[in-house]
Amino acid sequence: MLLSQHGKLLVKAIDSNLRPTSWIPVRLLASFAQTDSSFFTPRVNKQRLWEDIHHSCQWGKGERWGKGETDTGMSRLSLSDSDRMARNWFEETTRSLGCTTCIDAMGNTFATRKGRQQGPPTCAGSHLDTQPTGGRYDGILGVCAGIEMLRVLQDEKIESEYPIGVINWTNEEGARFPISMVASGVWAGRIALERAHAIREVGGGKQTMRQELERIGYLGDMEASYKAMPIGAHFELHIEQGPRLEAKNQKIGIVQGVQAYRWHTITVKGRDCHTGTTDFANRSDAMLTAAKMILHSHRLAAKCASLASTGILTLTPGSTNTVPGTVCFSLDIRAGEDGRLMRLEEDLRADFGKIARNEAVDDLNDARTIGKGCTVEWSLDAPSEAIKFDKDCIACVTDSAKEIFGTEFENRTQEMTSGAGHDSVFTSYRVPTAMIFVPCKDGVSHNPVEYCSPEDCAYGAQVLLGAVLRYDKLRAEKSK
Amino acid sequence: MLLSQHGKLLVKAIDSNLRPTSWIPVRLLASFAQTDSSFFTPRVNKQRLWEDIHHSCQWGKGERWGKGETDTGMSRLSLSDSDRMARNWFEETTRSLGCTTCIDAMGNTFATRKGRQQGPPTCAGSHLDTQPTGGRYDGILGVCAGIEMLRVLQDEKIESEYPIGVINWTNEEGARFPISMVASGVWAGRIALERAHAIREVGGGKQTMRQELERIGYLGDMEASYKAMPIGAHFELHIEQGPRLEAKNQKIGIVQGVQAYRWHTITVKGRDCHTGTTDFANRSDAMLTAAKMILHSHRLAAKCASLASTGILTLTPGSTNTVPGTVCFSLDIRAGEDGRLMRLEEDLRADFGKIARNEAVDDLNDARTIGKGCTVEWSLDAPSEAIKFDKDCIACVTDSAKEIFGTEFENRTQEMTSGAGHDSVFTSYRVPTAMIFVPCKDGVSHNPVEYCSPEDCAYGAQVLLGAVLRYDKLRAEKSK
Repeated sequence: MLLSQHGKLLVKAIDSNLRPTSWIPVRLLASFAQTDSSFFTPRVNKQRLWEDIHHSCQWGKGERWGKGETDTGMSRLSLSDSDRMARNWFEETTRSLGCTTCIDAMGNTFATRKGRQQGPPTCAGSHLDTQPTGGRYDGILGVCAGIEMLRVLQDEKIESEYPIGVINWTNEEGARFPISMVASGVWAGRIALERAHAIREVGGGKQTMRQELERIGYLGDMEASYKAMPIGAHFELHIEQGPRLEAKNQKIGIVQGVQAYRWHTITVKGRDCHTGTTDFANRSDAMLTAAKMILHSHRLAAKCASLASTGILTLTPGSTNTVPGTVCFSLDIRAGEDGRLMRLEEDLRADFGKIARNEAVDDLNDARTIGKGCTVEWSLDAPSEAIKFDKDCIACVTDSAKEIFGTEFENRTQEMTSGAGHDSVFTSYRVPTAMIFVPCKDGVSHNPVEYCSPEDCAYGAQVLLGAVLRYDKLRAEKSK
Repeated sequence: MLLSQHGKLLVKAIDSNLRPTSWIPVRLLASFAQTDSSFFTPRVNKQRLWEDIHHSCQWGKGERWGKGETDTGMSRLSLSDSDRMARNWFEETTRSLGCTTCIDAMGNTFATRKGRQQGPPTCAGSHLDTQPTGGRYDGILGVCAGIEMLRVLQDEKIESEYPIGVINWTNEEGARFPISMVASGVWAGRIALERAHAIREVGGGKQTMRQELERIGYLGDMEASYKAMPIGAHFELHIEQGPRLEAKNQKIGIVQGVQAYRWHTITVKGRDCHTGTTDFANRSDAMLTAAKMILHSHRLAAKCASLASTGILTLTPGSTNTVPGTVCFSLDIRAGEDGRLMRLEEDLRADFGKIARNEAVDDLNDARTIGKGCTVEWSLDAPSEAIKFDKDCIACVTDSAKEIFGTEFENRTQEMTSGAGHDSVFTSYRVPTAMIFVPCKDGVSHNPVEYCSPEDCAYGAQVLLGAVLRYDKLRAEKSK
C-alpha cells in the first residue's frame, strides 16, 4: 500500500490505460498524480474497470446503436431475470474479493470488506437496474467502480481502518416498479416496507415487488433498514446525465446536493364519445385537455427555471374513432429549491383546474377548442426534497480530485447540483453522503446511446477510491 | 298481409307498445299511421324488438351505469368469444325465421328469406360488434330491427317480390382490428382480403383477423365479394350518435350521405433523455411535440367546420423520469366534403412539420418550450370519401316515414349527413343504399350510457321495414 507504508512518497506509475506498472517516486508522475496533501491513493485499473462494466452488461442488453461489441443500450428492468444474473455476478465477484454479503428484504445487497476495527462500513453504492431503453453507465458505473475499489484494495493488500463496502440498491430507476430509489428509501426508513413490497409493475405485467424479489431469490432475511444494516458513509459515482461537464471539457463534478422533485399522476376525466358525430362543443375530450396541460406545464416550468416532463400517458378506451373519456399522465416536476418547486406545483394545480373547467389560461382554452369541460385529479407518487450533501464527504471528494488534477483542479472539475434523484438522496438522510459525477457523451442518459469513455470512467473510479480511503482515515482520526 | 290483399285499406291497430291487436280500416288509425300513398306497412312489435336487442346484449356486457337490468354498456369486440355467441344467436334466429344463412371469408353473415322471384335480396344490415366501452344500440339496433323485420314478415305471412335479407357485417367498429368497416370494405372490393386478414389486433393481443375468424368458426367458405354474394339494396337503421335529432325532438333522420374522413397514425420521433438532467433546450421531447400537434389539429379543424380527434396515443419508452423519444397517435379528421377535408389535411401536414422543426405555428413553439426538434411521419390507415346515398332508397325511407308521421312528417324528421362511417358507405359503392337515423340520449354514443328509447327503436324499425318493402315493390315495378 501507499499510505506512507515505507515512509516514502511512492505511487505506481501508470501506462496509457491507467494500468499500474511499477513503483515510482510521486514527483515523477504527470499532473494526473500531483497532490496537495500527504495522502496518496493507489491507482485504479482502467482496462479492468471497463471490462467489469461490459461483462456485467451481457445480462439485459438493449438496442444496438453501433457496430462495436459494447455498442448496445441496456434493458435490465429491476428484478427481471437479467437483473438476477447481474446480481448473482455482483455477489460472486465481491465474495471472491474477500467480502461478506448481506441481502435485505428489499433485495439491497451489501458487500463488506473487513477493516482493522469493527464498525459500519464506508460504502460506495449505486444500482445495476436500468431503464427499459437505458444505457451501460447509469448506475452500473457506480457499482463497477465499487468493485474496482475492492480489486485495488485486494491487489495492494490495503488494510482500511474501518470496513469498506459496496452496495447494489434495488429498483433505483423506478422504471418497472414506479417509485424510484424505493429500496434505499425503505433502508432509510422513509418508505414503508409494506408499501414498497406492494408496488405493482407497470408495462403489462401484474407482479408486485415482493413477488418478484421472491421469484428471483433476492427477498433477503435481513430487515431493510439503516438500523439493521448501518453504514458509515455513502459515496456514489455516477454519470452526470446532462451536458454541463462535457460542455466545459471537465472530468469530475463535485456534487453538492440534489434538486427537489415531485412525481404526480394526473387523471383527466371527460366522456367517451364518437369522433365523427360529436362536435367540439359537445365533447369532454380528456386527450385534448391533457395535451393542453402538458404544454402548459412546460411553459410554467420554463418561466421559473424549473423542469416539467411527461413520460407516461395512458388513455381509455383507446380507439381511433372514440374521443377518450379518461387520460392519465405522469408529471415529473423539478427545481433546485423546495420552495420554488412547491410554488410551481401550486400554480400548475390552479391552472390545470382552469384548463379542465374551460376557464382562460393563456390562449389554451380559446373558444374553438373548448367543449363541456373535464375534471382533473392529482395523485402524488414520489416527492423528494432538495438535498445538501455532507461537508466532510464533499471535502474527501474534493481532495481526491485535487490529488489527481493538481494545478489543473479548477479547470477539470465543477461543483454541481444533481438534476436526477439517486440512492444517495435517501442515504443522506441517515449517513454522511456525497456524489461524484463524470461526463457522458452529449449529456445523453436513459437512452441506449448513453456513453462514458474508459478514461472518464477511470477518473471517476479514481476519485471514488480516493474519497472512500480519505473518509476511512477521517473516521479513524475523529475516533481518536 | 296488408298490401291490399283483400282489396281493402286495412292495417292492424296497435296498442301503446306498438303491438298489433286487430285488423282495422286505415282511416281509424292515429296520425302515426297516416299515409300519403297506397302502400301500408305492417307494424313492428316494439316490445319484441326491445327484447331481441337486450337478449343479444347478454354476450359482452360492459360497464354498469344504472340499476336496471339493461343499464350496462357493451364491450363486445369483434371476433371475441362474446361476438361468437351473438353471431351464433343471429344465425339460429334468422334460420328459425325461415332464412338460409351464408358466411363469407370475412365472417360477414347474410340471412336470406325467399321472395316470389329469384334475385339478390333487398337487405337490412348493420353490425353486432361494439367499441370496448360501447353501448347497446350502435349497430345492434340495426341488426335487431332486421330480425324484427323478418319476424313481422313471418307472422304476417308476407311474400315479398324478391328475397329479403339481413346482414351482420364483421368488425364495423375497427376497435379491435383497426380498420373500421373492413369486412363490408372487402365485400365491396375496396379492401384486399389479404390485407384485411392480416390486420393484427390492438390492445395487447397478437392475433390477426384471419386467426380469430378461424378460431371462432366464422371463416366462411364463400368469397367475401359483392360478386359472390350480390344484394339488391342496403338499408341501415342506426342511432344518430349525435345530438341533432334530440335537440329538435325529432324521431327519424333521413340520411342523405356520409361525411368524408381520413384516419392517420402520426409518429413523432425525438430522443429519450433523463427528465431531471436535461434542460428543455437540450430535449427532443416527442410527447410535448405531440401535445402541441393535438391541440393544433383541433384549432385548425374548428376553423373550417371540420373535426379532428385523437383516440389512441402510445409512447416509448414509458417511464416517469424519461422524456419519451417516440410518440404515436391516431388522428381522425372529418369533413362534409372531400375537398375541405383534403385542404385541412394539407394544412396539418405543413404545420405538424413546422411544429416538429421548431418553426413558428401560432404560439405553440414559443422559445420557452422548444428544444432540439423532432421528426414527424404520417401513415394513412383508412380514407373514406364523402358519400351520397341512392335517390330511390332515400325516397323509400322518406315515404316510409311519411306513412308513419303523416302531416307531422316535417316536424318529426330531418334530412341529415352522417358524421360517422358505416357499412353503408361500402355497400353504396356497389348497390343502392340509404340509412335511417333515430335519436340517442344526449347524442352520446361509443359510451356505456348510450341509450335509445324503446319507442325510438320501434320508430326506426318501422321506417326500415316500410323502406325495404317499398324498395322490393319498386324493383318489381322496374323489372316489368
